[in-house]
Amino acid sequence: MSVLIVGTVAFDKIETPFGKTEKTVGGAATYICLSTSHFTKKISLVSIVGDDFPLNDIKSLEERNVNTKGLQIKKGEKTFFWHGKYHNNMNSRDTLETQLNVLENFDPIVPEEFKKSEYLMLGNLMPSVQKKVLNQMKIRPKLIVLDTMNFWMDNFMNDLKQSLKEVDVLTINDEEARQLSGEYSLIKASQKILLMGPKYLIIKKGEHGALLFGENEVFFCPALPLEEVLDPTGAGDSFAGGFIGHIAKSGIINFENMKKAVVYGTVLASFSVEKFGTEKLRKIDKEQINIRYSKIKKLMSVDLK
Amino acid sequence: MSVLIVGTVAFDKIETPFGKTEKTVGGAATYICLSTSHFTKKISLVSIVGDDFPLNDIKSLEERNVNTKGLQIKKGEKTFFWHGKYHNNMNSRDTLETQLNVLENFDPIVPEEFKKSEYLMLGNLMPSVQKKVLNQMKIRPKLIVLDTMNFWMDNFMNDLKQSLKEVDVLTINDEEARQLSGEYSLIKASQKILLMGPKYLIIKKGEHGALLFGENEVFFCPALPLEEVLDPTGAGDSFAGGFIGHIAKSGIINFENMKKAVVYGTVLASFSVEKFGTEKLRKIDKEQINIRYSKIKKLMSVDLK
Repeated sequence: MSVLIVGTVAFDKIETPFGKTEKTVGGAATYICLSTSHFTKKISLVSIVGDDFPLNDIKSLEERNVNTKGLQIKKGEKTFFWHGKYHNNMNSRDTLETQLNVLENFDPIVPEEFKKSEYLMLGNLMPSVQKKVLNQMKIRPKLIVLDTMNFWMDNFMNDLKQSLKEVDVLTINDEEARQLSGEYSLIKASQKILLMGPKYLIIKKGEHGALLFGENEVFFCPALPLEEVLDPTGAGDSFAGGFIGHIAKSGIINFENMKKAVVYGTVLASFSVEKFGTEKLRKIDKEQINIRYSKIKKLMSVDLK
Repeated sequence: MSVLIVGTVAFDKIETPFGKTEKTVGGAATYICLSTSHFTKKISLVSIVGDDFPLNDIKSLEERNVNTKGLQIKKGEKTFFWHGKYHNNMNSRDTLETQLNVLENFDPIVPEEFKKSEYLMLGNLMPSVQKKVLNQMKIRPKLIVLDTMNFWMDNFMNDLKQSLKEVDVLTINDEEARQLSGEYSLIKASQKILLMGPKYLIIKKGEHGALLFGENEVFFCPALPLEEVLDPTGAGDSFAGGFIGHIAKSGIINFENMKKAVVYGTVLASFSVEKFGTEKLRKIDKEQINIRYSKIKKLMSVDLK
């Protein structure tokens, strides 16, 4: 049940209609690690930061059973920084500033003891970096999940398509599914994408839930309606962390169990957005997760004869 | 199980990215009647048209067991006309032209034999007209469902709020729920709206499904992912018709049965959008409806321990 997680560890500066943060610790891998840590204790991280990154924040990941041996700390360099502002409806955002910093020349190195990890989560990153990690694995993981975004499709579509051939699960949002497939209908889009390599496709629709495609089946999981959404940053990463966390914990790879994993992903994302940054993911416990799991179950439960 | 349906009978001219129609028969009441006709045979209509409206189209409603005695035909006047154009994503549209015509002075008259109808569907119309119908009922219907839209909220909010006090179920979309309640969170919005009168609230989210609130419960029904959507016109009305059709057919008014009604509403809406205008609603049969009902069941079925 060992999970290797690759992705950014970053500083984020976030503005939403409900408030803003100064520089706060974020990045896809951070959200994924925190989310996955609620399911399994064998987590390892491959990422990169500058020496401006607080050691305390690395420690706090380790306290959540994340092995940070694969986290490179670049002396004299700065951590990846993203500054974004969400629009009023929270469904769209502008990037106000991006400083790639250490990411510019990121050459991921997978420590020897992680090269046989059973589960591999390739968080949102440049496709060629995701590929370099894939290539270092000594045994093909039981499950490889890849998350990506429109930016990589715009600029590195060929690299991305190469990686797609080797992964089991792709997680993207609805617009990205349309961009990747050239189809507007998500049904048609899923059919095309499942021919590109992944056996399973998860289309994340934010507050509108998530669709899981694979094994000629479709499953839909609604998002939990929330009283308050403060910050959508990292929702997709938290989802991915809950998803692979449940799969790793259960060890079962089939459509039926992936449905449950999608529900767990939805639960973790629902917590993530209720506070700024990673605050809430650090605070929740198993009982709170189970309560929300039951809430989603109830939300979609109906005795249809 | 008699259902009284009030709403517009209209000519629509529709443009979408996938085609367009010349003047075609539409209107909220038309869609609702056709949709409800798949569930029950005791349907009556209260509406108005001009003498430019084809008698054949009235006949075709009667052939589907819609009693049109309450359909006023105004000599020398013209039928309500709407011309709209959908944007590329099909989620928004522009109204290019509206001719109120007969609607301008519509004084609805409920024929004596319909004044004891068991179910009342107040389709999208000026709130004061909906109210006039309500006032003519001799026995309080078992269930009153009201559908409305942002236009009436913009211009006749007080009238609408008066009517809301007397209805059981309100159906609106997510933006309208936000407008009516002043709350962005749909959870908070539902809490406020349920204090305005309705015991149940259905928030329609188009391709993103529908939420049902009431009895301190929430239920979510996903929309059926479709290969092709040609024309969203009338989707909400088709939904309403399927909803009240199932309730009237079953005669059971509680949250559990309303969940099923929401699924039937979703099924009817899914057919409606696959062709322009009301074409598909006229062609489907019980078996096709049941197949889609099962599909939605499957889409949301998961054994969550």
